[in-house]
This record gives sequence, C-alpha cells and structure tokens, in this order.
Amino acid sequence: MEFKKIAVIGAGSWGTALALTLSNKGHEVKIWDVNKEHVQELQVNRENVKYLPGIPFPDKLQPVAAVKEALEDAQVVLFSAPAQHFRSALDNALPFISQDMIIINVAKGIEQKTLKRMSEIARDKMSNMKYVVLSGPSHAEEVGLGLPTTVVVASTDIKLAEYVQDIFMTDKFRVYTNSDVIGVEIGGALKNIIALGAGISDGMGYGDNAKAAMMTRGIAEIARLGVKLGADIHTFSGLTGIGDLVVTCTSMHSRNRRCGILIGEGMKPKEATKKVGMVVEGMYTTEAAYELAKREGVEMPITEGIYAVINDKIDARDAVNQLMTRDKKSEIMF
Amino acid sequence: MEFKKIAVIGAGSWGTALALTLSNKGHEVKIWDVNKEHVQELQVNRENVKYLPGIPFPDKLQPVAAVKEALEDAQVVLFSAPAQHFRSALDNALPFISQDMIIINVAKGIEQKTLKRMSEIARDKMSNMKYVVLSGPSHAEEVGLGLPTTVVVASTDIKLAEYVQDIFMTDKFRVYTNSDVIGVEIGGALKNIIALGAGISDGMGYGDNAKAAMMTRGIAEIARLGVKLGADIHTFSGLTGIGDLVVTCTSMHSRNRRCGILIGEGMKPKEATKKVGMVVEGMYTTEAAYELAKREGVEMPITEGIYAVINDKIDARDAVNQLMTRDKKSEIMF
Repeated sequence: MEFKKIAVIGAGSWGTALALTLSNKGHEVKIWDVNKEHVQELQVNRENVKYLPGIPFPDKLQPVAAVKEALEDAQVVLFSAPAQHFRSALDNALPFISQDMIIINVAKGIEQKTLKRMSEIARDKMSNMKYVVLSGPSHAEEVGLGLPTTVVVASTDIKLAEYVQDIFMTDKFRVYTNSDVIGVEIGGALKNIIALGAGISDGMGYGDNAKAAMMTRGIAEIARLGVKLGADIHTFSGLTGIGDLVVTCTSMHSRNRRCGILIGEGMKPKEATKKVGMVVEGMYTTEAAYELAKREGVEMPITEGIYAVINDKIDARDAVNQLMTRDKKSEIMF
Repeated sequence: MEFKKIAVIGAGSWGTALALTLSNKGHEVKIWDVNKEHVQELQVNRENVKYLPGIPFPDKLQPVAAVKEALEDAQVVLFSAPAQHFRSALDNALPFISQDMIIINVAKGIEQKTLKRMSEIARDKMSNMKYVVLSGPSHAEEVGLGLPTTVVVASTDIKLAEYVQDIFMTDKFRVYTNSDVIGVEIGGALKNIIALGAGISDGMGYGDNAKAAMMTRGIAEIARLGVKLGADIHTFSGLTGIGDLVVTCTSMHSRNRRCGILIGEGMKPKEATKKVGMVVEGMYTTEAAYELAKREGVEMPITEGIYAVINDKIDARDAVNQLMTRDKKSEIMF
C-alpha cells in the first residue's frame, strides 16, 4: 500500500492515538489543534504530555501551527473534535478542503441544538464530501500503547470504507468495514447515555447484575431509535454498538461513567460535570436523544429516566425503581 | 398470587440465592443437596456459610436431608446442579417427580459426552415434562443481597414461562419471558467460553479494547451456532446472550474468567483449573462447542482458538495474533 499524506484536526487523546497509529505505520501525518499553546507543547515535547503522556512521536508525525499547513497537501483529513464542536472545526477547515480529499470523522455525538448526526452536518456543508466515520471500542490510552484493538469504518460508499480500512490496518489495529453510517453514528453517540446510567447505578451501590441489565436493555432502546432513523439493526450487535457500549460502561477511562458515579453517590448533576472537568458528551447526548425519541415516537425508558435524573426532576433511586417495576414483559418485546 | 410449595435441588451459591428470593417472597421452599454434611450445616447455621455467607434463612426456607422429603409435595422443582451433573441429579429425583410438577433448571452448559443441551436431557427422561429454563446476568452474591437483577425464564409453552415469571417477580428481581429455549440455553452455556477467553486476554496484559472485541465477536459466533441449532437470533442480543456474557467477562466473581487469567499469565490449563478449585464449566463447554461447531459446519474462530489454547496446542499469544490477522472483513459478515 502507498503511504498517504494525512491531516489530523484535534490533538486530544484520541486524535493523538490515531495520529501515532498512522505515522507508525508509515504515513506522513500532520496534527493541528485549535489550542495554539497545546500545539507548541507538542512541538517542543514531541509527545502529548497533556492527554496521552509517555508515548514519543515518530518523525513522520508533525504538529503544525496553522490549519492551512496541515491541510494544504493532505489526501486524507481526520477530524477528532468533540461532537458539539465538529461544526466549527469543519467551518474552520473548509476553505482548504477539496472534493477529492477523504474525510474521516471520529467524533461521537448528536449536535444538541439541531439534533443532527455528524454526517448530516458534513453533508450540509459539502453535499458530495467523501465521508467516512470511524468508531468502535477503543480507549486512546490502549491504542497509544499498541494493545490489540478493533474498530469499524463506515461509509455509504463501501469502496471508500475499504480505502480507509487499508490505511489503518495493522496486526494490532484491526479494521472492519460497514456501509451503515447511521447505525454506527447512533451507536457511538448514544452509548454515552448508558455509560452515564451505568455510572449512576455503580454510584448508588448496585452491582454487576443491574449494570448488565442496563447495558442489554440500553442497546435495545438505542437500536429501536436507530432503526427508526434508518439504521441496520445488525450494526447494534457489532463493535460500534454493544462492543463500544461494554467498554464504556465498564471502564474508569470513561468520563461519562465517572460523572454518573458522582451523581449516583448523590452529587448534583451540574457539580458532577464540573468535577469531571473535561467534556461529558453523554450530558448533551441524553438531551438530544430524549428530543429525538419524542420526535420519532420511540419508547426509550432508560434514556427518559437518565434525562429526568440529570435534569433534577427525579431521584436516581426512584428512576431505577420505575424501571424495575414496569409491566411484566416478554423479552423480545422489551 | 397464591404461594407455592417449591423444592430446590442443589445448595450451591445460585440455588441458595434463588431459594432465598423465593422464600422471602412468601413461598414455602425446601432445599436439598447431594452433600449430606452440607445440608446439616445449613440446618444448624440457618445460613449457607460455605457458598453464600452472611444472609440468614427466613423461616419459610427449610434445608431437608432426603430428596424425597423435598419433592413429595412440591408443585415446583428447581434444579441447580452443575451442568455435567444435571443428568444424575435428575435421575436421582425422577422417582418423586410427577407430570404435573413444573421443573425449572438453572444449570448452564452442554453435556460433554453427549453434546446435549439440558432441555434435551430432560426430554429424554420424561417427554412431556413441564420444563422451564431460568438464565440471565445474575451473580448469586448480588441476588442474595437483594440488589436489582433481571433474568429470563424460557419455555416452549409460554404460559408455563409466565407462570414461573409470576412466582419469582419482585421489585428487585425482574423476570422476562421468552419462548426460545434453545437460544437461552446456548447463550448461557457458551458465554463461559468467552469468559475464559476474556480472562486469558486480561492475563496476557491486554486491555479493555481487546476484551470488548472478544465479547462482541464472541456473541456473534455463539449466535451463529445457536441459529444453526434452531435458536432465534434476537435472544443473543438479550439478557441471556450479551447481558450474561458481559457480566461474566467483566467480573472477578466468574470462575471461568479467573481460570482464564491464570492461563493468560502462563500457567498450564490443567494447573489453572486445579488452582481455581471449583467447577470451571467453560473448560467442558469449550470442548462441547468445538465438537458441535464441527458437527454443524459453523465457523467459530474464537472458540477454536480457546480450544487450542486449553488443550496446549498453541500459545495464547499466537492464538490472539491469528485472530487479529485474519483476512480483512466487512463487519456484518464476520
């Protein structure tokens, strides 16, 4: 395979881990971030001390100070901004993006003010954009250390997904393709709601049984909404569905779960978010999914319960009791 | 609901936890175990000090010394023997079992020497048995403490499943029904293979990403075999499929996972089983599933890998490498 010139937009932990994976494979990678001081630190330290410490940059990975410099000769552009900032990151880059560039997005979320998925935002900006979403169960810390990881790249144009599969694939970073962009986006975004819920359950002192129930029934209601929006139900049984959900709900790496734990222990949701410090995407996603479920007429009892808890409308313990005492059901229908 | 007379056969941790749940609800429960000394201890201590310490028996829970005494006036009989011993437990009880009794089985496994599921063994013994399987993500320790738990009861006769649902249902122990006995049995049995594999991965020092991949692709191959045997694919997305898999693969309560960790750290499989001390069901189930997959012509690469590792045919690290370097795939087909 021919090596590519790749721009990475956003130097958080995940953008950096992917930039390392790509440059270690042999691609020429330029990484840029909206925070100028952060870029300077990357240039001086040749390491992301702030978000992914301990992993030195290879020569093929170059932090650059201007977005133009990252993009001007890139064949592939990877966006790694938080979901609520993807629109502005794209606006910022758009003057330098041409129609033959391949755009990869790794942000997981729903834009709160428009209820749009990331691919819908991209399509609004450039209708013929060569757009691929990359998602799956992948803590940046582990990818940075070269531990075995599997992800999915999805595009409505499967040839494009296969092109991106080739770019990334190594014996430690295994890449599957999927043509179901909607399913991959919905699974990746909405798992953060269930991670909040799993954290709340843990914080209340409940055990693995309760958390397994929340994950299982959580993916069922996520799939219900996804299918209504046009997704393939099988995607939710895959790496970007149940796979990503599991890793997020059971790991202390997850900010969403950590925030949930604080709420479950009795902290007010606003304080909990502040204490976690970084972006707690699940707080936005819960609001967005709640609105989407209403708009689409889809029953999402766990999402509704978490929405009520984080908006201080109900106590977490009462929310769990409501879920446990719903009508008796057959499993397939729940 | 009218309270029932219930016999529990097998006083391990799970049998005891279910006996506690039933007697606390108001049913009259007699519990018997093949180990006479163990029954005597239960009678003296009014608590299962050995397998579920710290939870006193209510008056309605009576340990009895003879299997006849447990069964003679029972309306419902719950079997909680290890899977490889279900046949002998049933043989032992059969003289006292009548056709109007409802039989619940909670054993998870495949009989190694016959490759039969538990319900097939039961049907061989009494073709018109009123048979219900109970399964799901449920550590006995948590159920004993009254922490929120969800399970599934499955029977080809859905009215029977609903009857058992009513017997168990409380605000802490939520029960769903399903008519897919095969799917519930296959999911409950084969998750122990993946738990062994998750343990091996952990023991080798791999992370959450690798484990999430193993769980996701593990349930996919379990479903593949299950569907070939006549199961409904949806069952594997439910509590007895992915739900039980998750809880088993992420908890130190799981003997299968603990055994896998020792193997992953380099201990010989036989030594590891000995060190864990109690029954490691996954070792039998791996052999049985490997044979079933061959017989049915179903591709199960993870099961094959774990089979090779526990039979000392391949090093664990090489098995993972083989899985990571298979041909590039589309996700839906993997």
